[in-house]
Amino acid sequence: MHETTTTDQAAAEEALVERVLQSFARTEDPRLKTVLESLVRHLHSFIREVRLTEEEWSAAIDFLTACGHITDDRRHEFILLSDVLGASMQTVTVNNELDGDATEATVFGPFFVDDAPSIPFGGDIAGGAAGEPCWVEGTVTGTDGAPVPGARIEVWEADEDGFYDVQYDDERTAARARLAAREDGSYGFWGLTPTPYPIPADGPVGRMLAATGRSPMRAAHLHFMVSAPGYRTLVTHIFVEGDEQLVVGDSVFGVKDSLIKRFEPQPEGAPVPAAHDLGGRPWSRARFDVVLARTAPTA
Amino acid sequence: MHETTTTDQAAAEEALVERVLQSFARTEDPRLKTVLESLVRHLHSFIREVRLTEEEWSAAIDFLTACGHITDDRRHEFILLSDVLGASMQTVTVNNELDGDATEATVFGPFFVDDAPSIPFGGDIAGGAAGEPCWVEGTVTGTDGAPVPGARIEVWEADEDGFYDVQYDDERTAARARLAAREDGSYGFWGLTPTPYPIPADGPVGRMLAATGRSPMRAAHLHFMVSAPGYRTLVTHIFVEGDEQLVVGDSVFGVKDSLIKRFEPQPEGAPVPAAHDLGGRPWSRARFDVVLARTAPTA
Repeated sequence: MHETTTTDQAAAEEALVERVLQSFARTEDPRLKTVLESLVRHLHSFIREVRLTEEEWSAAIDFLTACGHITDDRRHEFILLSDVLGASMQTVTVNNELDGDATEATVFGPFFVDDAPSIPFGGDIAGGAAGEPCWVEGTVTGTDGAPVPGARIEVWEADEDGFYDVQYDDERTAARARLAAREDGSYGFWGLTPTPYPIPADGPVGRMLAATGRSPMRAAHLHFMVSAPGYRTLVTHIFVEGDEQLVVGDSVFGVKDSLIKRFEPQPEGAPVPAAHDLGGRPWSRARFDVVLARTAPTA
Repeated sequence: MHETTTTDQAAAEEALVERVLQSFARTEDPRLKTVLESLVRHLHSFIREVRLTEEEWSAAIDFLTACGHITDDRRHEFILLSDVLGASMQTVTVNNELDGDATEATVFGPFFVDDAPSIPFGGDIAGGAAGEPCWVEGTVTGTDGAPVPGARIEVWEADEDGFYDVQYDDERTAARARLAAREDGSYGFWGLTPTPYPIPADGPVGRMLAATGRSPMRAAHLHFMVSAPGYRTLVTHIFVEGDEQLVVGDSVFGVKDSLIKRFEPQPEGAPVPAAHDLGGRPWSRARFDVVLARTAPTA
């Protein structure tokens, strides 16, 4: 696997790995020690396996520096990098082991904000963001089927142009809100029918995607974070059945079949939930029943 | 190795790795494809092996962001990170395979600058930097023993307070120069007797060293880069025999036994090379014979 010319050379490379591992011997936090030792082993294996050239090493340093320099409070290039390498999704997968019929998790993404406005059942999250209105409803239950009243539901999404509010030039809050499940576990709100959009591609991560012939497009989706005491916090999306991007591939590997939902266009005259004023616009509706795993996995 | 609860879970994790690898299938540059595929495999193996938590993932993102934000034209935190993880030294090792008695390479470090002043044989590199004067001399030959006249020799080092000129508040150039080997391959210059110093430890890399009980100190050293047409460019240091830091450990793993040299304190009245005005100060001398490998390894 390591194409070295001599056994002396291989021994020199292995001795270096051992010296680096040894340098962490005095780490007090055992978990930090474990993580760093594994990181060092894999990092060195990677360098040895590909026989990384000094030019490539230098390009990697420049790439990381460029990621750092474009990053600010609103642009998170290292999250994007983790996303497009599937590292975010693998972390999600490792931390949300399959647990019966609990709803599957997917990537968090860089666009969540902590202090989204609170809305009642039937409220509108749009806050002026452009897009086709969409009624989203469902229930929050445990894996035992019992409703989880009061579950905190946070939702956020891009507008029809593919931008989240944090990407706007002003400080507006739009297309995000939090609400609570009712006594019977039900919830419902007005959002926007999701549309596909590219991840920010004008930085180093975008250049990497271009160099590898990859599309920056994300499959259309609506973000959910659902939490309640005693349950594993669920961070997920729902995707739009029929979205072409589901076939082409999602740039951050977030799609799971169980999360693809029908967003049903509504015929004229169909009853409008929560007495919402649509102003004559077409709208869709989707259903997403959330099943939360208990904090200690039962499976 | 991957402590998953179910085979379904392991299959889900492996399927994700495959999807990510597949996304690079259209990469035109075959080398880029190879490097990224290996990176993805090792990155995912690391995440799965340590069962990286979402908090740890988030801490890693914050760490990389902090490295990016402290980095500028004079401070290179990602190089430091690579250095303290031994990644720089492993890259050097992989690219400078042992080749007969060719001088061993070591880390480049973040303090080289391209346009150092040119000096003749016997010139002084100090440029006002504080420190004990040191006469450094030797020859540049190939592995066949033949001199390499005209070999370009670039040298740089820290002052006695442990600072390189690029770390000064002003734009002074000090303790760096370039010179050429003479017709017989010999070279000689006045530098400073190297002293141990810490790598910059006031940033995220320094915090990592503190958290792992590691010293930021580098063994005392003098940098060399030696290049000539037809020869592999040598980037190396010489270290100071007897330096305590050689026992404690060098923070960037740069030490090789063959690079430890005697810096001999000179008795009063000892003949001073190159008619240098020492102003009565004590001085030392060291010898470093450089052996360059041919561009295509001969071993």
